[in-house]
Amino acid sequence: MNNIANYQNFITKAIEDLSLPKQPKQLYEPIHYFLGLGGKKMRPVLTLMGCELFNSDYSIAKEAGLAVELFHNFSLIHDDIMDEAPLRRGHKTVHEKWNSNVGILSGDALLIIAYQKIATYEPSLIGKLFPLFNQTALEVCEGQQLDMDFENRNNVSIDEYIHMIKYKTAVLLGCSLQMGAIIGGSNDKNAKELYNFGVNLGLAFQLQDDILDVYADQNKFGKQVGGDIIANKKTYLLLNAFEEANTAQTEQLNQLADEKNLKLKVEGVKSIYADLNIKAKAELKMNDFYEIALANLKSISISSTKKQPLLDLAHFLMSREE
Amino acid sequence: MNNIANYQNFITKAIEDLSLPKQPKQLYEPIHYFLGLGGKKMRPVLTLMGCELFNSDYSIAKEAGLAVELFHNFSLIHDDIMDEAPLRRGHKTVHEKWNSNVGILSGDALLIIAYQKIATYEPSLIGKLFPLFNQTALEVCEGQQLDMDFENRNNVSIDEYIHMIKYKTAVLLGCSLQMGAIIGGSNDKNAKELYNFGVNLGLAFQLQDDILDVYADQNKFGKQVGGDIIANKKTYLLLNAFEEANTAQTEQLNQLADEKNLKLKVEGVKSIYADLNIKAKAELKMNDFYEIALANLKSISISSTKKQPLLDLAHFLMSREE
Repeated sequence: MNNIANYQNFITKAIEDLSLPKQPKQLYEPIHYFLGLGGKKMRPVLTLMGCELFNSDYSIAKEAGLAVELFHNFSLIHDDIMDEAPLRRGHKTVHEKWNSNVGILSGDALLIIAYQKIATYEPSLIGKLFPLFNQTALEVCEGQQLDMDFENRNNVSIDEYIHMIKYKTAVLLGCSLQMGAIIGGSNDKNAKELYNFGVNLGLAFQLQDDILDVYADQNKFGKQVGGDIIANKKTYLLLNAFEEANTAQTEQLNQLADEKNLKLKVEGVKSIYADLNIKAKAELKMNDFYEIALANLKSISISSTKKQPLLDLAHFLMSREE
Repeated sequence: MNNIANYQNFITKAIEDLSLPKQPKQLYEPIHYFLGLGGKKMRPVLTLMGCELFNSDYSIAKEAGLAVELFHNFSLIHDDIMDEAPLRRGHKTVHEKWNSNVGILSGDALLIIAYQKIATYEPSLIGKLFPLFNQTALEVCEGQQLDMDFENRNNVSIDEYIHMIKYKTAVLLGCSLQMGAIIGGSNDKNAKELYNFGVNLGLAFQLQDDILDVYADQNKFGKQVGGDIIANKKTYLLLNAFEEANTAQTEQLNQLADEKNLKLKVEGVKSIYADLNIKAKAELKMNDFYEIALANLKSISISSTKKQPLLDLAHFLMSREE
């Protein structure tokens, strides 16, 4: 068994070894810059681990790992433009450091380079990897669109929210694992179960994100605790609160959305969350997805010993405090 | 032999039959809108003709034809944002009708859908089509970047200009033909010659564009004659004029770039072009590329009868007045 840092180092090295063109400078320099900003490389780590579940040599999944990481970075560059985000991983976003046009075109190029990595496999593997990657990529676009749509809607249902985070975040985790499994020689059934494991783990992870944003220990949390409340972000918690609230509480929540005193705002929303038992409800839903993910992993017909690293990773991800 | 309208109708029908998703509306509606704006469908026509050169059934190249047409439309949607173009084919561009974010994301989705069309072929064909499509797509991005770079540079060489139009426009014509040839069962050598035919024809076509923009009959020309001169666009003609000009003429050209009286501006530049024999020089270069294209076509080892439609198309394209 490798620990996570081994896989991360392997992918970081692979990214450093990418021999991308240098010219035109305005096209490729932003790609070099953005790929150099770091990040946890969670998706390619999943690809390598998915491969290792069925094959002792995870290095054969390197190009697929690069594909999911490059795709993820493409989507971040374009999302940052759409969300007008000034910072990514503590550094200027591409459209801030250059401009939107540079962000659009270098993002496009990055997506195409991701496809070039898929194209390095032999035809019989491409036949399986390519449709999966396409489907996932399109779903990620749909997820981003839904996320933007939700900002302007006041009637987002909890089911719609789950669908959005599934597409925007979770399916790429499933795809990352399944591509690894395919390259490792898995049969279709096991590969699909591993995909489901990734999707459900991703959903649990995203709900945990929503919970931590409100209830994390500020000394351990990387972002501002309460940030989602301040931004009126329609999280699983807020949507649940609106669903459970009585008339007075609904009115209070609507008033708090416009509250200028941010401390009062966060405390006010948290007080309603407490009255409605929202944290426990969110944790219940998160654990539901986590349990389904574990059941998906269990149903894969391969020795438990080989599954242990993925089980450890899942446990590690779900016990984070930041 | 089919006439061009047959192929165009075939592709128009195939686009109408695309069963794209309807939701999220903000993602897919702009795609439907943009694909409905028409256009000559020249690239997929080339794919069908490239296939028919080697196979009596051109319909097997339908999905590849869709891929190049969808890719072309993706690049137009994103280019229109970057160029701040208000109109495309006489209608509002996507970012004008909606906004830039909609243009970015629906363009991304369109690129992925283009890849989905490539993925419909059997693995052995994908093994050839996929790398060609990737390489071409990346070159088109590089061409667009170079085109934007040139706007801010005063020392663009003629070789750099040819390189830019090759990447921005010509390689996709070559790729369209070669994908058709591959699907039609061509050997690698013939497929590559057909690619070269497309690239050189594309270069000739683009130079013809530059010439027509200055010398077309306004009664037959779809755009404003002199539009490139008015916009100070660095065309093959202008770059040549700067290269050939003496000190006085260089100064005149620089002054004319700032001339507010557009009639005087166009006439002034045309007068220098006449003194320097620029039109004839551009026509010579255009014909060079055209002759190379014809030689490429000639070198393909297949009966002349089968090549006749492509020869007719080349002749048709090069004798346009609009």
